[in-house]
Amino acid sequence: MKKLVECIPNFSEGRDKKKINKICRAITNVKGILLLDVESDPAHNRSVITFAGEPNVVLKAAFQATKTAAQIIDLNHHKGEHPRMGATDVIPLVPISGITMKKCVKLAQKLGEKIGEKLKIPVYLYEKSAKREDRKNLANIRKGEYEGLKKEIGKIADRNPDFGPKHMGKAGATVVGAREPLIAYNVNLDTQNIKIAKAIAKKIREKDGGFKNVKALGFELKDRGITQVSMNLTNYKITPPHIVFDAIKKEAKKYGVEVLESEIIGLIPQKALIKEAKHHLKIKKFRNDQVLENILKKKIK
Amino acid sequence: MKKLVECIPNFSEGRDKKKINKICRAITNVKGILLLDVESDPAHNRSVITFAGEPNVVLKAAFQATKTAAQIIDLNHHKGEHPRMGATDVIPLVPISGITMKKCVKLAQKLGEKIGEKLKIPVYLYEKSAKREDRKNLANIRKGEYEGLKKEIGKIADRNPDFGPKHMGKAGATVVGAREPLIAYNVNLDTQNIKIAKAIAKKIREKDGGFKNVKALGFELKDRGITQVSMNLTNYKITPPHIVFDAIKKEAKKYGVEVLESEIIGLIPQKALIKEAKHHLKIKKFRNDQVLENILKKKIK
Repeated sequence: MKKLVECIPNFSEGRDKKKINKICRAITNVKGILLLDVESDPAHNRSVITFAGEPNVVLKAAFQATKTAAQIIDLNHHKGEHPRMGATDVIPLVPISGITMKKCVKLAQKLGEKIGEKLKIPVYLYEKSAKREDRKNLANIRKGEYEGLKKEIGKIADRNPDFGPKHMGKAGATVVGAREPLIAYNVNLDTQNIKIAKAIAKKIREKDGGFKNVKALGFELKDRGITQVSMNLTNYKITPPHIVFDAIKKEAKKYGVEVLESEIIGLIPQKALIKEAKHHLKIKKFRNDQVLENILKKKIK
Repeated sequence: MKKLVECIPNFSEGRDKKKINKICRAITNVKGILLLDVESDPAHNRSVITFAGEPNVVLKAAFQATKTAAQIIDLNHHKGEHPRMGATDVIPLVPISGITMKKCVKLAQKLGEKIGEKLKIPVYLYEKSAKREDRKNLANIRKGEYEGLKKEIGKIADRNPDFGPKHMGKAGATVVGAREPLIAYNVNLDTQNIKIAKAIAKKIREKDGGFKNVKALGFELKDRGITQVSMNLTNYKITPPHIVFDAIKKEAKKYGVEVLESEIIGLIPQKALIKEAKHHLKIKKFRNDQVLENILKKKIK
């Protein structure tokens, strides 16, 4: 089986199409890259690009994208709903096939070292690649965001990067690491009251005693006059979308607020979709091969 | 694109593994056949075999299976919950890729003619291949089942077959036709009272004023001491599983009966799974390419 790694870097630009395209091109110019998805959010002022390929090819594309983002994004002039600390804010690497998590952990370290040394950008290792327990969680590393970290880096030892300089330029700092596949999942609320979205996010996220493997933040979607509970479900086998959807619905009701809709950002493994259908229809047994497309694919090979 | 037809013949044997295997082998012995699924139900005493391949290959395999079933199944000694009229009860053909419904309609006619002439089995064309309006619906053709039809065939002109002899042997008669992909979907009820399952089936099926594109029957699952609403959803885009699941749940409640679980028999198109997840999670926009496996498959090609 071909070795396949997925990479889902987040860039601090979600409005300027030209700049987003420039970063995409830096990725697709690398031979062997499969560009899977580009999702830009103007309110967050952030883009999530998903691509895959063989390990070294992915490493090269991630480096080129980070280099390009550093040239065209200035964190001193960046405003958006989503917390951020770098032009390339975070680079997760996910093992897809023919490669272990352990190998991906090393790949992320290699990438981080290269970004630190060649681009002179401070790099922090997170998730499975973290070298310190407290750096497993991205939120701990990103505390204070670009502005806050800029003041503390090089001064507070605890905040120094794993690779690169102990000071930040306009490209900020970048977080790199290997992790399990996650589902980026948002639930939109029919209220302008950001306090409600934030309170619900707090209630459901693991950090504050909520569901396992759930990260959640409350955001305003000003252009639509609504709010959003924006989540990362870092293990859908333990906490699938319907668990948080139902919980948010129930919490919102306490405030007299309705759930408007939900959205999957980027990609979702097919198994997660099957899990949803199984839950809602009370289906006990179901094999992946019962999906027509799967069994056909398997048999045609 | 390769021409691909799916064939889902139903055989009146769901208990004797040896006989079922014999029929399977008749299919897989044909070169180029992709065997996709075999589902045997002892209570129904019926097996559903799903396979695919190029048009002529599928035609050959369907013919061989019908021939084998006629040799080893005797309808005079067949008992099961499910209505039936032939050893090979029904042979649906479904266009999958690179082939039109029109072509499939003709393919079914060719298959029916061959079965009638060579195997001396009466054949009725149904669904899209039907030559008479009243034969579009399988239930009309199968009225009275094997025993009833045996008495009327050759005597009542209206009941004469489209191909083959106007009398029946122990292999009964076979229904052949092209149709849209369907979802075989069962909902199990926590009651032994077959009247409730039958009443709910009647309430939800199209024939009696229920949901569009829904066929439904009530069955007893004696071994488990429960009952079942067994359905064919002949167009999941119009009536998806959750519509009938919710309706059955609501109807059952009126009798104080709970829905135990549901089951997908055989295959389900991935789009139907996506539709379920979208409905339950109130997801407005979702592209097929957001399924990780889909976009990877597309890009790797």
